[in-house]
Amino acid sequence: MPKPSPISPTVDFDRDGVQHGFLRLPYSRDDSAWGSVMIPICVVRNGEGPTALLTGANHGDEYEGPLALYELARTLEPGQVSGTVIIVPAMNYPAFRAGTRTSPIDKGNMNRSFPGRPDGTVTEKIADYFQRELLPRADLVFDFHSGGRTLDFLPYCAAHILPDKAQEAKAFAAVEAFSAPYSMKMREIDAVGMYDTAAEEMGKVFITTELGGGGTARAETVRIARRGIANVLRHAGILDGAVEKTPTRWLDMPSGDCFIFAEEDGMFETMADLGEDVHEGMVIARIHSIGRTGGPPQEIRAKMSGLLAARHFPGLIKTGDCMCVVAR
Amino acid sequence: MPKPSPISPTVDFDRDGVQHGFLRLPYSRDDSAWGSVMIPICVVRNGEGPTALLTGANHGDEYEGPLALYELARTLEPGQVSGTVIIVPAMNYPAFRAGTRTSPIDKGNMNRSFPGRPDGTVTEKIADYFQRELLPRADLVFDFHSGGRTLDFLPYCAAHILPDKAQEAKAFAAVEAFSAPYSMKMREIDAVGMYDTAAEEMGKVFITTELGGGGTARAETVRIARRGIANVLRHAGILDGAVEKTPTRWLDMPSGDCFIFAEEDGMFETMADLGEDVHEGMVIARIHSIGRTGGPPQEIRAKMSGLLAARHFPGLIKTGDCMCVVAR
Amino acid sequence: MPKPSPISPTVDFDRDGVQHGFLRLPYSRDDSAWGSVMIPICVVRNGEGPTALLTGANHGDEYEGPLALYELARTLEPGQVSGTVIIVPAMNYPAFRAGTRTSPIDKGNMNRSFPGRPDGTVTEKIADYFQRELLPRADLVFDFHSGGRTLDFLPYCAAHILPDKAQEAKAFAAVEAFSAPYSMKMREIDAVGMYDTAAEEMGKVFITTELGGGGTARAETVRIARRGIANVLRHAGILDGAVEKTPTRWLDMPSGDCFIFAEEDGMFETMADLGEDVHEGMVIARIHSIGRTGGPPQEIRAKMSGLLAARHFPGLIKTGDCMCVVAR
Amino acid sequence: MPKPSPISPTVDFDRDGVQHGFLRLPYSRDDSAWGSVMIPICVVRNGEGPTALLTGANHGDEYEGPLALYELARTLEPGQVSGTVIIVPAMNYPAFRAGTRTSPIDKGNMNRSFPGRPDGTVTEKIADYFQRELLPRADLVFDFHSGGRTLDFLPYCAAHILPDKAQEAKAFAAVEAFSAPYSMKMREIDAVGMYDTAAEEMGKVFITTELGGGGTARAETVRIARRGIANVLRHAGILDGAVEKTPTRWLDMPSGDCFIFAEEDGMFETMADLGEDVHEGMVIARIHSIGRTGGPPQEIRAKMSGLLAARHFPGLIKTGDCMCVVAR
Amino acid sequence: MPKPSPISPTVDFDRDGVQHGFLRLPYSRDDSAWGSVMIPICVVRNGEGPTALLTGANHGDEYEGPLALYELARTLEPGQVSGTVIIVPAMNYPAFRAGTRTSPIDKGNMNRSFPGRPDGTVTEKIADYFQRELLPRADLVFDFHSGGRTLDFLPYCAAHILPDKAQEAKAFAAVEAFSAPYSMKMREIDAVGMYDTAAEEMGKVFITTELGGGGTARAETVRIARRGIANVLRHAGILDGAVEKTPTRWLDMPSGDCFIFAEEDGMFETMADLGEDVHEGMVIARIHSIGRTGGPPQEIRAKMSGLLAARHFPGLIKTGDCMCVVAR
Amino acid sequence: MPKPSPISPTVDFDRDGVQHGFLRLPYSRDDSAWGSVMIPICVVRNGEGPTALLTGANHGDEYEGPLALYELARTLEPGQVSGTVIIVPAMNYPAFRAGTRTSPIDKGNMNRSFPGRPDGTVTEKIADYFQRELLPRADLVFDFHSGGRTLDFLPYCAAHILPDKAQEAKAFAAVEAFSAPYSMKMREIDAVGMYDTAAEEMGKVFITTELGGGGTARAETVRIARRGIANVLRHAGILDGAVEKTPTRWLDMPSGDCFIFAEEDGMFETMADLGEDVHEGMVIARIHSIGRTGGPPQEIRAKMSGLLAARHFPGLIKTGDCMCVVAR
Repeated sequence: MPKPSPISPTVDFDRDGVQHGFLRLPYSRDDSAWGSVMIPICVVRNGEGPTALLTGANHGDEYEGPLALYELARTLEPGQVSGTVIIVPAMNYPAFRAGTRTSPIDKGNMNRSFPGRPDGTVTEKIADYFQRELLPRADLVFDFHSGGRTLDFLPYCAAHILPDKAQEAKAFAAVEAFSAPYSMKMREIDAVGMYDTAAEEMGKVFITTELGGGGTARAETVRIARRGIANVLRHAGILDGAVEKTPTRWLDMPSGDCFIFAEEDGMFETMADLGEDVHEGMVIARIHSIGRTGGPPQEIRAKMSGLLAARHFPGLIKTGDCMCVVAR
Repeated sequence: MPKPSPISPTVDFDRDGVQHGFLRLPYSRDDSAWGSVMIPICVVRNGEGPTALLTGANHGDEYEGPLALYELARTLEPGQVSGTVIIVPAMNYPAFRAGTRTSPIDKGNMNRSFPGRPDGTVTEKIADYFQRELLPRADLVFDFHSGGRTLDFLPYCAAHILPDKAQEAKAFAAVEAFSAPYSMKMREIDAVGMYDTAAEEMGKVFITTELGGGGTARAETVRIARRGIANVLRHAGILDGAVEKTPTRWLDMPSGDCFIFAEEDGMFETMADLGEDVHEGMVIARIHSIGRTGGPPQEIRAKMSGLLAARHFPGLIKTGDCMCVVAR
Repeated sequence: MPKPSPISPTVDFDRDGVQHGFLRLPYSRDDSAWGSVMIPICVVRNGEGPTALLTGANHGDEYEGPLALYELARTLEPGQVSGTVIIVPAMNYPAFRAGTRTSPIDKGNMNRSFPGRPDGTVTEKIADYFQRELLPRADLVFDFHSGGRTLDFLPYCAAHILPDKAQEAKAFAAVEAFSAPYSMKMREIDAVGMYDTAAEEMGKVFITTELGGGGTARAETVRIARRGIANVLRHAGILDGAVEKTPTRWLDMPSGDCFIFAEEDGMFETMADLGEDVHEGMVIARIHSIGRTGGPPQEIRAKMSGLLAARHFPGLIKTGDCMCVVAR
Repeated sequence: MPKPSPISPTVDFDRDGVQHGFLRLPYSRDDSAWGSVMIPICVVRNGEGPTALLTGANHGDEYEGPLALYELARTLEPGQVSGTVIIVPAMNYPAFRAGTRTSPIDKGNMNRSFPGRPDGTVTEKIADYFQRELLPRADLVFDFHSGGRTLDFLPYCAAHILPDKAQEAKAFAAVEAFSAPYSMKMREIDAVGMYDTAAEEMGKVFITTELGGGGTARAETVRIARRGIANVLRHAGILDGAVEKTPTRWLDMPSGDCFIFAEEDGMFETMADLGEDVHEGMVIARIHSIGRTGGPPQEIRAKMSGLLAARHFPGLIKTGDCMCVVAR
Repeated sequence: MPKPSPISPTVDFDRDGVQHGFLRLPYSRDDSAWGSVMIPICVVRNGEGPTALLTGANHGDEYEGPLALYELARTLEPGQVSGTVIIVPAMNYPAFRAGTRTSPIDKGNMNRSFPGRPDGTVTEKIADYFQRELLPRADLVFDFHSGGRTLDFLPYCAAHILPDKAQEAKAFAAVEAFSAPYSMKMREIDAVGMYDTAAEEMGKVFITTELGGGGTARAETVRIARRGIANVLRHAGILDGAVEKTPTRWLDMPSGDCFIFAEEDGMFETMADLGEDVHEGMVIARIHSIGRTGGPPQEIRAKMSGLLAARHFPGLIKTGDCMCVVAR
Repeated sequence: MPKPSPISPTVDFDRDGVQHGFLRLPYSRDDSAWGSVMIPICVVRNGEGPTALLTGANHGDEYEGPLALYELARTLEPGQVSGTVIIVPAMNYPAFRAGTRTSPIDKGNMNRSFPGRPDGTVTEKIADYFQRELLPRADLVFDFHSGGRTLDFLPYCAAHILPDKAQEAKAFAAVEAFSAPYSMKMREIDAVGMYDTAAEEMGKVFITTELGGGGTARAETVRIARRGIANVLRHAGILDGAVEKTPTRWLDMPSGDCFIFAEEDGMFETMADLGEDVHEGMVIARIHSIGRTGGPPQEIRAKMSGLLAARHFPGLIKTGDCMCVVAR
């Protein structure tokens, strides 16, 4: 029999109204013998109805989600809602406080930690709580992502191509409602440990985004995120009001040829900016050796035509880093 | 009498042709008793004529300069040149290798280390070598900057408002030749220790840039940098060919009201993107407390009208950080 | 079938007399390919009779236990003993050497690592050795604790309220014999992974203490520890001589209302000192925001009446830290 | 000619009323190119009259001063004051935020950094600002100290034995007014770099304290600090109301024999608690070797009779640490 | 059912000719969201025939193996080969890049990580790939070791005494072919987690070496390694040409008395150099206390006669470190 | 007027007999408010006569000196001596404890810190004490060196070619007396900050050694060191008994061509071992790129003929490291 979760919430998920509280996770350590990790949570409930579970900072250095969700938690009123909205604006809260992708406590990548363990690391304990306590309550699961400090993305909303086509159709309809400039049908090559997979395997409607990156947020991408999440809640009948639709361009990443990985260390130069057209065989990036002047850069050529959907962000690059992603 | 510099160059500044070499600075340390810092340098000389001294990575996390200068060093041929071009694409080379603003060796901020010291820290020794060996050789001094990992700027070329109006006019003419989208007349409030000041006090024509930031470079900003530096060399008569002029918009930062500093820690939200218009009294940024949901963000208002010229880049902000810069 | 423990003792547990030796645990690492952790151990045996297993520094920053036990190991003579005394004065020896609660090698909290694993981390290997080799030898298990660097406690000896009332009665009798100023009947909310639980589940008489804290020891608390452990051994018939009884005050922590956790970061102020009376609703602590002057502190009120039994020790406090414990 | 201080205050020292603001010190670094250190400051002024300069956290791990001064800044009203009270509750603010004695930025010990340098380290820049801007404004200078994380003291208020006996008498009278349980006449063997010396050399009345230690504060020592600082301001005629006198015991540290330093590493045991009587030749402390059981501890004997005024706090001790201080 | 390995090779093991490529292991982390570890691999194949799997840097600070294997990979031509040679010159590549025994990513000791886990740490994922993908392809497995930064060894080639005497005989014949100055018949006391064991349990011929140490390589030991590996491949019929035999001296480590562990911290002095004769009872090493002058060193005596086969390398030693190994 | 040194010795330099004590240097820090660095010192004096000042661990990772000098301090008897022997076996004691070249406190390289400063860093304070207190007492100054963790040397004793030929002759005679296998006449290119220079400028006879390296010591090099220092003291008439002469080979490093520096990062391979003959143009070292297999190594050729006197020790090398030294 699995152990109970060590996490105790200070909110009551079945109470009507707005509650601002914490998921308290005991965490004993050198600088606090009886310390805890306190993950902010907000629950807005108004009677029976569907439940949406909204999360940001699954990776701690991605900001459009937290900027949309702290604001939503602050402004959402029960009278606007039918059902329940559970908001965890910073899912991997220790990582979010540190401004890093993974947790500074255990280097845990939240999105590779599912289904988690009640007696595992801090990150695994949080995953386990979502797996066994929060996901089962949800009908709709929305998880915000952006590129973080080391990647930059075109702004898109996305859902997975799924074996259950009814489930898939619901998810793509929600993506359409989000109305990001781009929308993506994702094939996951390696879905082990993902929050996405955990939700989808329970039959939930799961939607996610990539809305920029570089460890920052722009005014424009935050506007996309805020309008999008309201649209999705309206589309689901949880928030009153009509969806504010704007046109979106659907993208696809059909094969492993979309991804190009560095085989040298050096200074990274992208030859195209995000959203620009790329054609097969074109030099789309270069890696410059920095140890001396005068040597030729390594030239990297596109393996397929399309548009530049994502790129390595920092000025330096290491062997094995993903340099660019071409989508169609 | 000052001590001689411990730095020895492996290039001969008075020899015609192209040389790729190093400035070798002995640096004894735990992991290399007889180690050295080897700073790449390229000299392209073709007979008598003016000397341009070109530098990038004065701050190690700024990439448009190095991307332009490693390329220039690789491609410049003596036949194109009248005089001498000295290229140090990564001035604070230890910082550049680490991808950080300051040197990982001594935390030295190169642009606050002038005039340097021959028996000081590694950063001070490099500054001293520029002060006593390289600057005196130069007629034109060009130092590339961008915002680095923690700031983002509109792309502009800039020179200082100077007491010597003839010197100032030469600098502004070179800025005009660079042809960045924006051009800036800078007033420096605190010029102590700057490379700029060191060059200007010797009567040199000194020009600099801010060309983006965030610790990355875009294809577009790199194109601006490469075209700009060629233009400046052509304008100076060192490189053959005509200046490729494009229109530029001149900006000014007239007072301390241009700069706004954070008085809280939290998650940073800019309400305008770079280049957007801003008017006095408008909320241009907000700081969100992250410890719990439900609290109001702190609102920051513009102290003057203009356009947003620079902003804090990372998603989190700390008390005392510069949040935004408004220019006119 | 479980693997054998990698730990080899240099003492013989069945030999009469005094032996000072080590538990040697191979630990290969970057700074010692064939290194080991050497945990000091002392065995004093005199014929047949009960066995007491005495431990300190289960948490490495707690000193009353090690100060009592290194002294006991140095001075105990076989002639005074009937049976066997096994003394491990620093159970989590790597943590003890570092002066930290958890092990610097693996961040292991010894008291959450039971039953351990023979092929786990260093801390888990030590736990496994106690679980499978030392605990089975013992009749009486005494584990010294204090508050460590981040908590401070009233001095008390304690045992758990247990389902087996005969086992419980033996433990409380031993607590009574210890004769600390205070005595505690503990209810453990979350007993997973504790040494206490491991011992109790084997049916052993398990006793523990909290004797101060702050990462130090006072002359007075060391006297309590030394007199107490001698009393317990006399009470158990292992050490000759009569128990030196002094009056003790029994305490109880009846519910979760005893514990108060911080919901803000800041500077911590306790409004009562240890042992002072506290009544429900009284402000027992305040948290001061340190970023600027002039703001009101957050006031924390007692949820029940009693006396202050424990408190957060350092001057600064973080969200989630236990601030104070009220006992009755 | 000395450079101007880079610090700019956001308060006006000559304006009547209460102001809460900052000393802003630009501090460019890897994680904030245009960052600053923002040191909280409060000025309460009511017309002409003497000026008191009150400081805490000269060492960042000492809490009685900050607890008294943030509270005083929050509650002091101009109507109660004649003259000016300048409050900097956390003088070495970076150290205070980190909870460490010295600054995490430059390891600067504020009390060894005077007179400071405007172009030095962050700690030296703060010292320089006090030296050239704040001390000259003051008549009375009060600097709170406690033992910090590694020492523990009897609570006393103190002033130096000075060559100028009139200045000394004023200081001792203020110490008497403070009414701590103990009062100390200090001889400073090595006064180089101290804030005390900087103030005294300008002829100011300088008073200080030691009020406990261990990196914490007790309710009792905070009460002593709050009552004491009010008393000193009343005694100086700056705060209205009468001094609340309580008896104090005067102490003296006549020679180097008061201080005993460790000559071994190991576990520290004090044989007396603070305030207990000590006589020459008595074993007042022991150092236990921890690497194995069975060895004799090193015994340390008092070199003079008196009472134990201070002690090493942590459970472990290193060669060269001050173990105990005997006063008379 | 076990999960598939996350590692993808860029070489085709069944293709004839020379291929230089990578084992790509996805590794998401703070400084590269979509990063990978890229382990260099070379495959030289010429038709059917036996397969040799050659590895270096199982421990990352051992250099004879990588120096032999990068060279072999660079120079081996298909025409010289019958069958397949798979070369992974730096098995624990992250450790090798860092110059450390264990991986800087997870502190994994590769030689204690077998059989590995596809969803474990980076080191465990590499072990799993060898266990399930590479070892099954091999007939002959050769793994280079030296002493690394903390041990120094006589140069020897070695194989284990095995229960299957036919397998053992093949291994010893290959050792003989290697022709190192010394050859060793090894008894492994604790074989859990070793690569050796993984290979031997599959019935492979497994050979290894110790060829010096100290975290360096000498010209002489590199010559031994290069000649030896060519000899072994010739002996196996994979490389054409005759074995270049030179005399070797066979050694044995018959019991635990061969190994001596330090029981003190201090400065280490060996009284014999590698290869010198040692007799039982002789002082073979001393540990000097460094805290003060004048104290006697601890003397360590040999427990058996033989020659000094290995020693602790660094000048300082810690309790628990292996000081010396005597072989016969 | 210079400030007095903060260092206080616990020995009396003018007292006859053997004294073991400390140089106590107050060092306040986060983990010890009133801490000190305690540098072991031994003084052996027997009436009037010359004074020898003997030091080891000027660089903290060099062991032949400390191994010779702790032993000498332990065994030297006043009756054997005429005059005074001052022994500081670990001059940069904090570095020596850490096993690093430079001080872990301030990264100070002792041999570049002279003449030091009484109010500087810990390393500068030690240098100042030698400069102003110890060197003036000495007639003969002997400073042991070896290669440390990153270099390895042929064993030699050395003195500088000096302008004062009488002083030089005395030094070379002492070198001859030392009787190392090799002897060196050194030309110092950059003598700034060296202990050697400080001593020579006072007219002292200064001798030094290089006796191996790699951060270890061999039995043979320790024997050379012990016999050598006794010989030098006998030669100086301080120790009774006759010099035990053995043949030595004199070497010279005539120009900068002796030293070769790496211009690539990679894996280092020496093509000759220490003491082997080298001729101009021969490949004496190679640097292998480790990122992929198949690439050619960089070949480094000797710039002059001679023998290999020193080499880079670790298996990896960085651009700027000294690779090898050829002597004649």
